[in-house]
Amino acid sequence: MVDLAAIVADIGAEMAAAPERGVPAQYIPPLACVDPARFGMAVIEADGTCHLAGDADMPFSIQSISKVFALTMALGREGDRIWSRVGREPSGSAFNSIVQLETEHGIPRNPFINAGAIVVSDILLARHEPRELIGEMLRFIRTLAGDEDIFIDEAVARAEQQTGFRNFALANYMKAFGNLQNDPARALGVYFHQCSLALSCRQLAMAGRFLMRGGVNPETGFNIVSAERARRINALMLTCGHYDGSGEFAFRVGLPGKSGVGGGILAIAPGKASVAVWSPGLDAKGNSQLGKLALERLAARAGWSIFDAPVAEGAR
Amino acid sequence: MVDLAAIVADIGAEMAAAPERGVPAQYIPPLACVDPARFGMAVIEADGTCHLAGDADMPFSIQSISKVFALTMALGREGDRIWSRVGREPSGSAFNSIVQLETEHGIPRNPFINAGAIVVSDILLARHEPRELIGEMLRFIRTLAGDEDIFIDEAVARAEQQTGFRNFALANYMKAFGNLQNDPARALGVYFHQCSLALSCRQLAMAGRFLMRGGVNPETGFNIVSAERARRINALMLTCGHYDGSGEFAFRVGLPGKSGVGGGILAIAPGKASVAVWSPGLDAKGNSQLGKLALERLAARAGWSIFDAPVAEGAR
Amino acid sequence: MVDLAAIVADIGAEMAAAPERGVPAQYIPPLACVDPARFGMAVIEADGTCHLAGDADMPFSIQSISKVFALTMALGREGDRIWSRVGREPSGSAFNSIVQLETEHGIPRNPFINAGAIVVSDILLARHEPRELIGEMLRFIRTLAGDEDIFIDEAVARAEQQTGFRNFALANYMKAFGNLQNDPARALGVYFHQCSLALSCRQLAMAGRFLMRGGVNPETGFNIVSAERARRINALMLTCGHYDGSGEFAFRVGLPGKSGVGGGILAIAPGKASVAVWSPGLDAKGNSQLGKLALERLAARAGWSIFDAPVAEGAR
Amino acid sequence: MVDLAAIVADIGAEMAAAPERGVPAQYIPPLACVDPARFGMAVIEADGTCHLAGDADMPFSIQSISKVFALTMALGREGDRIWSRVGREPSGSAFNSIVQLETEHGIPRNPFINAGAIVVSDILLARHEPRELIGEMLRFIRTLAGDEDIFIDEAVARAEQQTGFRNFALANYMKAFGNLQNDPARALGVYFHQCSLALSCRQLAMAGRFLMRGGVNPETGFNIVSAERARRINALMLTCGHYDGSGEFAFRVGLPGKSGVGGGILAIAPGKASVAVWSPGLDAKGNSQLGKLALERLAARAGWSIFDAPVAEGAR
Repeated sequence: MVDLAAIVADIGAEMAAAPERGVPAQYIPPLACVDPARFGMAVIEADGTCHLAGDADMPFSIQSISKVFALTMALGREGDRIWSRVGREPSGSAFNSIVQLETEHGIPRNPFINAGAIVVSDILLARHEPRELIGEMLRFIRTLAGDEDIFIDEAVARAEQQTGFRNFALANYMKAFGNLQNDPARALGVYFHQCSLALSCRQLAMAGRFLMRGGVNPETGFNIVSAERARRINALMLTCGHYDGSGEFAFRVGLPGKSGVGGGILAIAPGKASVAVWSPGLDAKGNSQLGKLALERLAARAGWSIFDAPVAEGAR
Repeated sequence: MVDLAAIVADIGAEMAAAPERGVPAQYIPPLACVDPARFGMAVIEADGTCHLAGDADMPFSIQSISKVFALTMALGREGDRIWSRVGREPSGSAFNSIVQLETEHGIPRNPFINAGAIVVSDILLARHEPRELIGEMLRFIRTLAGDEDIFIDEAVARAEQQTGFRNFALANYMKAFGNLQNDPARALGVYFHQCSLALSCRQLAMAGRFLMRGGVNPETGFNIVSAERARRINALMLTCGHYDGSGEFAFRVGLPGKSGVGGGILAIAPGKASVAVWSPGLDAKGNSQLGKLALERLAARAGWSIFDAPVAEGAR
Repeated sequence: MVDLAAIVADIGAEMAAAPERGVPAQYIPPLACVDPARFGMAVIEADGTCHLAGDADMPFSIQSISKVFALTMALGREGDRIWSRVGREPSGSAFNSIVQLETEHGIPRNPFINAGAIVVSDILLARHEPRELIGEMLRFIRTLAGDEDIFIDEAVARAEQQTGFRNFALANYMKAFGNLQNDPARALGVYFHQCSLALSCRQLAMAGRFLMRGGVNPETGFNIVSAERARRINALMLTCGHYDGSGEFAFRVGLPGKSGVGGGILAIAPGKASVAVWSPGLDAKGNSQLGKLALERLAARAGWSIFDAPVAEGAR
Repeated sequence: MVDLAAIVADIGAEMAAAPERGVPAQYIPPLACVDPARFGMAVIEADGTCHLAGDADMPFSIQSISKVFALTMALGREGDRIWSRVGREPSGSAFNSIVQLETEHGIPRNPFINAGAIVVSDILLARHEPRELIGEMLRFIRTLAGDEDIFIDEAVARAEQQTGFRNFALANYMKAFGNLQNDPARALGVYFHQCSLALSCRQLAMAGRFLMRGGVNPETGFNIVSAERARRINALMLTCGHYDGSGEFAFRVGLPGKSGVGGGILAIAPGKASVAVWSPGLDAKGNSQLGKLALERLAARAGWSIFDAPVAEGAR
């Protein structure tokens, strides 16, 4: 029998003491000055049981993890039409690469690289003004997490806006190919705010529960998305959730996951748990160094890899 | 309760009648002249129950599916050292692309694209002569399948050899970067023979059982590879098994799988089933058109997607 | 003895009747609606003799030809320091490609592709406000041409501004790499105005005289740039003046030249002539179809190719 | 009045003492062990006057310079048909890059990168057996130089053959695209021998005379190629003769030239001189470091840049 409380406690202790912690993202001051000694973890089981470790209640900038929630909103509103404007393949490239956009005529490889997420913002703007849409996003994630304290860190949003030249380049480039309906600055305004959502590990794991529950919001019993869509979002997280480190994450951890440069990762063990980890130090590919290690430990000890054959035991 | 026999029969009937069947690979006559009307399927459950449909007992050229077995052999003999010579990331490119080799100094992205599989051949040659190694591969796959009738189609091997200029280019290119220890022609000799293994769906599904069983050979109860390695091979199949169609396969089917240009696909539902499908017509990315569709149907109706949350039912 | 008057007349007649004229640039209305039947040509010899054909006095949008004059200004003001921010190699890519910027860290290949010209604008802005700089550019080109009637077409500049998303992408991308000191919109404001300069063939050929004269302004006898710089600007025009059609232009025409999407080309026969041609229809690479053909005829009949061996006649 | 004898002597003295000499090519022993202290230069004027400096009579491996002579032969035999199989644009890439071949379907950018020269070998093989063709090439270059002592260094050819994996990759890759009619090894056999031609600076400058003479062989007064072809070969040398350092060479030297990794450069001042320099140390792009510098000095002092405006003097 797996003792999840002990596992989470062990991992928390190991990570608190880990010597190699990576380096926080340096491109904006609000991220660069986060203490690399931080580590938090929250594991919420299918029955709602919650296990916490370390700084699990300290809010951090979820950055690209927000792409999961924006994609969920876009699928809910526009359905599979969105796939004419963004692909579903791993990019094999860095999160902010512009090269594939040139050969692929402005269609980003997937919704979890920056270019893809900007297109998703643009899609969501079809029915809203930016300010309104940002408000909706905040309400959506508060509902998913069942927590009204979640907020957008305006200082982060401003800093993203002031330094996000690569994102401006991506947006203008897609606009040139006709794959952006709004003005680039308008789509980016939404994108930068969405990236600036601040959640704690506990809040993030709560917000991710629908993905372990086949799309069902455990608070209400109603579906956020259909089971098929939940499954497919998980598939995209597995193949594309860590940029050009996605294969490695699948290989080592074996769970759908999405990372952000703020040092957070949301991982889903379908049917079993929603997990959030956070440690600001990043590896060379922009993924949280300790976050990945903590999830590798957790998946191995809990036997949660989706590539594993648990029921094979009985069959032997 | 899932009635697998009925599902397999239904799929067999649907595929036999499908109007859009793709086009068989044209680059060598032995593949080009296979009848596109063929469709076969074999599903072997964890308890050994076997369900067949269509041409499930007709041998076909497994081509790149052999990369799974070669990787398994290489991991068994050389362990994780192999990862210094081949990566674990999806390539985002076609199966025979040479572009990434230039920027990444001769290290292929993963063992399931051609360049990566040629490196695996080279690794296996460290301890064997080519003829000997080919014999070992054949024995290995016969053991896995529990079937001595599996053979190598020498006519296919000769045709590959005569027309495989892209593969010669890849091998020589990696040799130039020092990532091939043998003469390119020597490594390719092994590679072309391995690609020319002829198996029926039934034989292939049998050979894949260890991947649904956590590495255990159901014939003997002994491990072919450790549970961790089996899990990781599955992860690689999921992220890299269909070239630049891998994301799409994960999205639609949700199972680790490996396709070959002969029109076969091996798919694994961990703990549940080993599945082989075959239909020679290919889609634009070189994957079996009906094979993919059949697996999508099967995974959906059997509820086998690894991204699904089956136990969430009880938890609600 | 070469009868230049007859040659120019012949070419004018041939081009007026040419059936294949290409298609004018379509991306902004002021260019798209120019009559493709137009053709103009002006040849100014070293002694000042001027030969005209067709619509030689009709102003057109010189577009990228302006990059020659902007580079000349930048070299005059900042000297060889500019080469730390922009290269001197042919790009082998389209005029607006962004791919090389990613691998080459924001340093454009040469000052005659869009990215390079935007950097030149940024360099020139070091000492001026945009409006002031645009005024200086206009004065500079009026002085070179000895013609106060040259103007900037504000309708073109506005249209460029409104549709120039690729250029916004390039500028933001370089800014992200730190290779732009001004705000991207500021540098682009200058760039779009410079591209909107309207000159006739006669005015353009007049403005180019210093490049056939070793840098000397024939109006004043003073040097615009040193002979060495004039030579080097000519070299850049030869290797980089027609984007990924530069090799072809060198091969067929054999003169330094710079084209613009407005359909103009400025070509220099060092020591012999400054030539401007204009016909709005473009070939697949964005260079004037009849312009290129007219220059090929002219260079061949006048014996002006810089790759030719005229004095060899006497030496035989 | 230009005193060419003094200029050549000065340059010889400067280069003999130059401290920074680059590093000889290391990929095969016969090149790696050449003494980097060597420097030779030969200048042959249009009237046949010859000026020598340093090791001007020491044979060296001309390597890629041979591509000029092979192209000349191919144009003579097959005419402009060759341009359907090889382009005329600078590549913007390294001499042995394979990337463009993938996107451009096996058509090399120009005949002066390795891939292009291999295609030229293949074209020449249409009418000859390899051994015969190599013999013809040797006779051709001996005739051009008027020197029967020119030879092929078999030790170099063997070493190229044994280590030329990148070239095997290029040849097989083009074969895969159908742009090679012979077996790759057959075309490469010719290519490697052609690269192994050993000439002294004096011999090389003699062999290049037809390019300064409008295609005329000064020995016979007959045309080797037409004046138009000679001009066009010069144009290709200017735009493509130094790989991704071609722009720089045009900028600094201003003469058509072709370099080889043996450290030689052939440069043509049309109508004025055929020049060969040799110093085995290479710069980062594989071009002779002192060779380039010597040519820069020569072109500047002799006023030979093709971008210059000499007759403008009289016109002032």
